[in-house]
Amino acid sequence: MTHLLDIKDLNKADLEQLFKRADEIQTETKALRLNRLAGKQAVCLFYENSTRTLLSFQLAASGLGATVFHLPVSHSSVQKGESFHDTIKTIVAMAPDALIMRHPEDHAHQQIVDLLPNNVHLINAGDGQNQHPTQSLLDLYTIRQHKTNFQDLKVTIIGDIKHSRVANSLIDALTTLKTTNIVLYGPDNLMPKQYADKKADNINTALDQADVVVMLRIQKERFDKNEFLNINQWHQQYGLDADKLKLANKDAIVMHPGPSNRGIEISAEVADGPQSVILEQVANGVLLRQAVLYQFLS
Amino acid sequence: MTHLLDIKDLNKADLEQLFKRADEIQTETKALRLNRLAGKQAVCLFYENSTRTLLSFQLAASGLGATVFHLPVSHSSVQKGESFHDTIKTIVAMAPDALIMRHPEDHAHQQIVDLLPNNVHLINAGDGQNQHPTQSLLDLYTIRQHKTNFQDLKVTIIGDIKHSRVANSLIDALTTLKTTNIVLYGPDNLMPKQYADKKADNINTALDQADVVVMLRIQKERFDKNEFLNINQWHQQYGLDADKLKLANKDAIVMHPGPSNRGIEISAEVADGPQSVILEQVANGVLLRQAVLYQFLS
Amino acid sequence: MTHLLDIKDLNKADLEQLFKRADEIQTETKALRLNRLAGKQAVCLFYENSTRTLLSFQLAASGLGATVFHLPVSHSSVQKGESFHDTIKTIVAMAPDALIMRHPEDHAHQQIVDLLPNNVHLINAGDGQNQHPTQSLLDLYTIRQHKTNFQDLKVTIIGDIKHSRVANSLIDALTTLKTTNIVLYGPDNLMPKQYADKKADNINTALDQADVVVMLRIQKERFDKNEFLNINQWHQQYGLDADKLKLANKDAIVMHPGPSNRGIEISAEVADGPQSVILEQVANGVLLRQAVLYQFLS
Repeated sequence: MTHLLDIKDLNKADLEQLFKRADEIQTETKALRLNRLAGKQAVCLFYENSTRTLLSFQLAASGLGATVFHLPVSHSSVQKGESFHDTIKTIVAMAPDALIMRHPEDHAHQQIVDLLPNNVHLINAGDGQNQHPTQSLLDLYTIRQHKTNFQDLKVTIIGDIKHSRVANSLIDALTTLKTTNIVLYGPDNLMPKQYADKKADNINTALDQADVVVMLRIQKERFDKNEFLNINQWHQQYGLDADKLKLANKDAIVMHPGPSNRGIEISAEVADGPQSVILEQVANGVLLRQAVLYQFLS
Repeated sequence: MTHLLDIKDLNKADLEQLFKRADEIQTETKALRLNRLAGKQAVCLFYENSTRTLLSFQLAASGLGATVFHLPVSHSSVQKGESFHDTIKTIVAMAPDALIMRHPEDHAHQQIVDLLPNNVHLINAGDGQNQHPTQSLLDLYTIRQHKTNFQDLKVTIIGDIKHSRVANSLIDALTTLKTTNIVLYGPDNLMPKQYADKKADNINTALDQADVVVMLRIQKERFDKNEFLNINQWHQQYGLDADKLKLANKDAIVMHPGPSNRGIEISAEVADGPQSVILEQVANGVLLRQAVLYQFLS
Repeated sequence: MTHLLDIKDLNKADLEQLFKRADEIQTETKALRLNRLAGKQAVCLFYENSTRTLLSFQLAASGLGATVFHLPVSHSSVQKGESFHDTIKTIVAMAPDALIMRHPEDHAHQQIVDLLPNNVHLINAGDGQNQHPTQSLLDLYTIRQHKTNFQDLKVTIIGDIKHSRVANSLIDALTTLKTTNIVLYGPDNLMPKQYADKKADNINTALDQADVVVMLRIQKERFDKNEFLNINQWHQQYGLDADKLKLANKDAIVMHPGPSNRGIEISAEVADGPQSVILEQVANGVLLRQAVLYQFLS
């Protein structure tokens, strides 16, 4: 495993190895952990703003002893007319151990992977509406902490499916783990054709007896001007509240990749309620990114 | 001591313990110092821009072996509609050891302290016009290096008292250390009613036989549009120059929290003169923040 | 050697010592390298945006075990009216081991060098159109990897000479190493009078039998409104393509400080071709900055 570009590149054994690595990291001593990637250098190159994913990678890497530098794009050579490829070749020439990149274009990482030698590991921190592999890893790990196996689960994903790399990556990863009962629900205009067979007719059917309910963020910044978004009626039609949640199994868990729009995608009552595992997802984010960095860099 | 929110939460013994800790840090070997907080992670969450306080905390933390990450707010989830509480809960879920926060609203830290577990230590790096506890610690420590006891001092604070969390914190801390002779002077419209009993009639009375003269920065950015500020006459009326300083005791020290507006709050001659301890304050800032981080995190 | 302000301050022996240090760093173990500047703190104060130089210094310093903090100017006290001198004095009072500064004004570093004690080392990361000493070090080191001695080389520098601190520093450094055959070419209005004796009549003469061809970036941001820039005809008149390169010696190397404007200053074919050492320059940048930091800070 050299680069992590797409969660589909990992098979079931790869995923299980990462989960096992995360289990180990959680139980080992801090001194041991801090020695894992001592002296390694990671560069975070974020062409989209981010708080949580960036900080999560920073804390993950430094928690294993690595040093992390953040290159915000507004300060970058982009302004001086340097091309994307040249930027990458320049950074690679400085020989960091990892390049953690977020980019607004789908498949941006695939464009540059051939520019990288084997000792510079490219980690995808999100590309456009395509993939967010470390998010799906933390999602799966969080599910695994609450459910006994993936095969028998009903996983319901609700909201702005179209613009969601989180949804794509999670569906791909669940498929690898043999989850067959994946149900999607959201506005018709935000439902990609490729997922037509997974679409529920209404939110009641979608939530009925669900084991895992994943609410997505409305990706306003990815809407183009021709795409319709009725934010006022969103909560009623596509939002999750305590009443709707009763349709799911009693022990269903509620997930959200964050940051959430409370009162729109999810009611505060549910977001802070006993079935919510949203903050566990955040905590697992650091851990799974450590597992990835450890697995790919050491 | 779990969190440092308000200097009033520290009693005389607490303050003296921190000063003693600062004394120790200053004399111990670099190798020992670098081991004090090795492996600890601090997150600086600054909702107001800052150079000196941010850098001071960064150098302080890293000088004790900790890793520090800076989350500038313009890059933050604030832009995606995430609430302040959610941002804090998210950061806390990533389990840093310290959250060093600056916020433009008074008492912002009190709003979130209940969201924090005991192992995430909240350090106030300034909240609105209310408190700046580490500033008062470095101010006191600087005074302590030049004066034998706090009880008998006349401390004069001049300028924009109203918008100054530096003044508030210093007055509170001096009160804890039994300094009774605290005299304030500034424009009437910038003098809070709560300090009416400390107000001098004129600058001559204020400076007369002072042991410590603290000049404040005019906090232009905190003035609302109805507040009057006559910047042209400021220096003459409320600024400190060599002539006025002669009214104070010969061994009086001159302080300023910085960054100063030279020629307005303070003349260059005084700022760079033999009685100025302004740069000692900056140096002590790193040291006292180390004392705080060591005391709260280890 | 306390500060690195101007490449002219280093004599031939100093340069050779730095090259030898770079050779050593490259071959020593990572563990040894990480211990070289362990516990040292560097502050990058960049009054101009930068990706490559900033990241190069960050990776260099952290690769030797030092901690680096970056103070972007837009977040700085400049906005609060603090003077440049006060900013420097404040940072110096915090006692970092190195201050790595980039500034848009010529000789900005000379203005502040007297404010620095001997244990705070000022490293020039570029000042206006004047000097960029670490760039010339990496340029020389790259040449040294390909050519046997400096005295007999013909070095041709082409492009926007006037605004180029890269050209200035390289010419100075080559002169120290006894390279006499330095030829410049570019638009008349971008050719400083001081270099009149080095100016070629046309690009053919300039390139003829050159051993080293250095293409410069057009520094658009340094053009004032009265300076003429015909970007459309630049490539034809002053750009390097494969045909023109044939005029140089067969084993000539092609350099560019980056970021390059492909198709304007240099054709993609040449930039990516076998004679290009552009990415070697980038790699050597980290190494030579390590040599500098090691030499000045330890």
